[in-house]
Amino acid sequence: MDSLCIKRSLFTLIFPLWKNLKFLRIIFKVFHSFIKPVFSHILKDFPGFTQIHSPYGGYDENYLYSFFILSIFNERKLSTTMKLTFQKDVLLNGINIVLKAVSSKTTMSILGCILIDASGSEIKLTGNDMELGIETKIEGNILERGKIALDAKIFSEIIRKLSSPDAEIHIETDDALNTVISSENSVFKIQGRDSEEFSYLPYIEREHSITLSQFTLREIIRQTLFSISPNDSNKMMTGELFEVHGNELKVVSLDGHRISIRKIILKENYDDVKVIVPGKTLSEISKILNGDNESEVELFFSQNHILFAFDQTIVVSRLIEGEYFRINQMLSGDYETKFTVNKKDFLDCIERATILIRENDKKPLILNILDHSMELKLNSSFGSMNAELSIHKTGKDIMIGFNPKFLIDALRVIDDEEIDLHMMNPKSPCFIRDEDQNYIYLILPVNFNAASV
Amino acid sequence: MDSLCIKRSLFTLIFPLWKNLKFLRIIFKVFHSFIKPVFSHILKDFPGFTQIHSPYGGYDENYLYSFFILSIFNERKLSTTMKLTFQKDVLLNGINIVLKAVSSKTTMSILGCILIDASGSEIKLTGNDMELGIETKIEGNILERGKIALDAKIFSEIIRKLSSPDAEIHIETDDALNTVISSENSVFKIQGRDSEEFSYLPYIEREHSITLSQFTLREIIRQTLFSISPNDSNKMMTGELFEVHGNELKVVSLDGHRISIRKIILKENYDDVKVIVPGKTLSEISKILNGDNESEVELFFSQNHILFAFDQTIVVSRLIEGEYFRINQMLSGDYETKFTVNKKDFLDCIERATILIRENDKKPLILNILDHSMELKLNSSFGSMNAELSIHKTGKDIMIGFNPKFLIDALRVIDDEEIDLHMMNPKSPCFIRDEDQNYIYLILPVNFNAASV
Repeated sequence: MDSLCIKRSLFTLIFPLWKNLKFLRIIFKVFHSFIKPVFSHILKDFPGFTQIHSPYGGYDENYLYSFFILSIFNERKLSTTMKLTFQKDVLLNGINIVLKAVSSKTTMSILGCILIDASGSEIKLTGNDMELGIETKIEGNILERGKIALDAKIFSEIIRKLSSPDAEIHIETDDALNTVISSENSVFKIQGRDSEEFSYLPYIEREHSITLSQFTLREIIRQTLFSISPNDSNKMMTGELFEVHGNELKVVSLDGHRISIRKIILKENYDDVKVIVPGKTLSEISKILNGDNESEVELFFSQNHILFAFDQTIVVSRLIEGEYFRINQMLSGDYETKFTVNKKDFLDCIERATILIRENDKKPLILNILDHSMELKLNSSFGSMNAELSIHKTGKDIMIGFNPKFLIDALRVIDDEEIDLHMMNPKSPCFIRDEDQNYIYLILPVNFNAASV
Repeated sequence: MDSLCIKRSLFTLIFPLWKNLKFLRIIFKVFHSFIKPVFSHILKDFPGFTQIHSPYGGYDENYLYSFFILSIFNERKLSTTMKLTFQKDVLLNGINIVLKAVSSKTTMSILGCILIDASGSEIKLTGNDMELGIETKIEGNILERGKIALDAKIFSEIIRKLSSPDAEIHIETDDALNTVISSENSVFKIQGRDSEEFSYLPYIEREHSITLSQFTLREIIRQTLFSISPNDSNKMMTGELFEVHGNELKVVSLDGHRISIRKIILKENYDDVKVIVPGKTLSEISKILNGDNESEVELFFSQNHILFAFDQTIVVSRLIEGEYFRINQMLSGDYETKFTVNKKDFLDCIERATILIRENDKKPLILNILDHSMELKLNSSFGSMNAELSIHKTGKDIMIGFNPKFLIDALRVIDDEEIDLHMMNPKSPCFIRDEDQNYIYLILPVNFNAASV
């Protein structure tokens, strides 16, 4: 206890000096340039360090110094007094991005917070539910540096309802973590949380990466995400395989009844990568990608994490551990029947048929493929539907049954006007794929009572 | 049993004759013109008659004849074979109107049906959940007359998803009530229900009525409906008083914490009326009124029912029985403080304050009315808010607390830019009213701990 007391007194003497006197900072800077390589190598796996380490590529030097001093004194304390001003819509935009990683249902209330970190030269907002973390830099004026964690729901609602889009918003904290948010004629006081309680994003080694456009990433997520399993019983099925080989990125999802595969060609060749990304991460990230074909997104892969960097934002997510399913043996190129049909007509027909099905009602949609036409039939306790579409067919006639939902899911995400379906027999999977196999949708058929048709 | 048999045989002989031979119809017509006045007076309260009676002002003569014949033979049967064609959007529009009176949660599945009645010269759709009934006439071709009741959910979804807006839709039924709905390349078969099971709208004597524009009716509903009680424990509070006196219509709703009153001047003088209309009826009718200032709606009042007639639609609803609350003694014109404030600024401020309140969290909004400004304060477990607005005040300073929700509800429906609030003391109701008292919103204040402010 005594030695801690001495340490504290020493700290209170030296800390203000370091903070205010320029020459002391310069000394540290020189000192740092010598010691940095060794220092960073040693501390890489040091648990406290990664917590105050900036997840942006470089090192935030202010962090490094303060960590250095503080670790000497076995004490970690940064001033929480903070004064910032923002333009409302800029702040709200940033909040909406990091909100995607804020846990709404949690017993740990700190996971329901947003961290405002203005301890460096820029302002960063962070949300982190321990599976998924998002950090974004926003424009604003730092009148006094500091950090604070605020309840995400209250904070975002206050900002959303405060004044007009271009109004100025002031945020000010005191040592007791009281936070005052004010704009024009309204003043809110809420209780903040100590930023030290907040879990920073994990540090990701930036070795293996690929680059693609935000538009493409959002598209491939949309075109595959529907066929992950919503069910946690097989963890692997709740994620998607991201496989990089040469200049090809392949994304796969499956749920036991169907497989969705999208391949895209990257601009360069990259090292091989094979990881399983949680579906929730992909769903959230596709909401914050701006979908622009010009803007790029960089993906970094480490042992246990994936990091997406784009615009002013980084998203870090845990990966799902394990070896993904071997799907290649299921992807045969053989078929006995192939037909081409107008996608929109086909989709409309199936959607209409599902009017007669309630959830959990396992009624198959039966396709009767003839030479120039396809009959669609569905019977349920509510009634029956019959429809007919014209097709171009090669190969044998076939009658085959499907869960209509699986066809609908695949057809909805295909952008082609005409699509090709390949079938072997009524027991074997059906493939919807384009010529270059940029997309492959495998769907298992279902049994049906031929007599009832 | 034997006499019934004889009746039936006679009926099967005579009915086709009546149906097909013109001269027989003419005889009935002549006969009818003599007997009609007596006939209609006698049969007015005859239960069977009201069921097949057309609720439109006049009498549907086909009904009358068939009723006459059928009542002689103690047998009521109309052919269910029916063939109709519609333009899709016309049919869908009609369905959407009557759907408002279809019960979605009912143990009696016939209440979840829509009746298509093309037994006369026009096509009528009817929905009826026994509290509220809606009937609307729609355009369509009758190829064969008939009636059928169809499951509202399935029927409406089929029509909604069938083809393009101007496609032609065919509906055909057979004697076994099988119904075929087809359009372009799709054919649906569903099981219909016997139209005889369906409850027709009750017959309403068209004696007492008032006329106003659809826009006005929709507005007065919107401006008062929020303050009915959602709670069934006091049935009277779940409805609204409609009171006609001379050329004035007064609409009142209250829930024990507040009273909303709207008065409008009608174009003519009418007989006195005082009825309580269920809130659900008003809510549904305001959804189907087109809100046009040119189009009118006629309201008819009977002992137990109210009938709204507009466009091609009639809505019939039960009334709530009983004597409404005497509110006049609560409406004092006295006040000690009166102030004028900009409605939008006031509303925005209160809405912002409610960010800090969760449901069931009874935190008062405290208004501190000073000479030229009003302070708004709210404290909760999440934090506090302070705001200030400029006002024009006459009378005493006052500090008074309200449930912010009640203020918000009233302010949202007032269209005036500037509003006047009148207060007596912190324990007496506050009145928001315009000069002519076209609207009066009475809100009870809540207690607050003055020390905590």
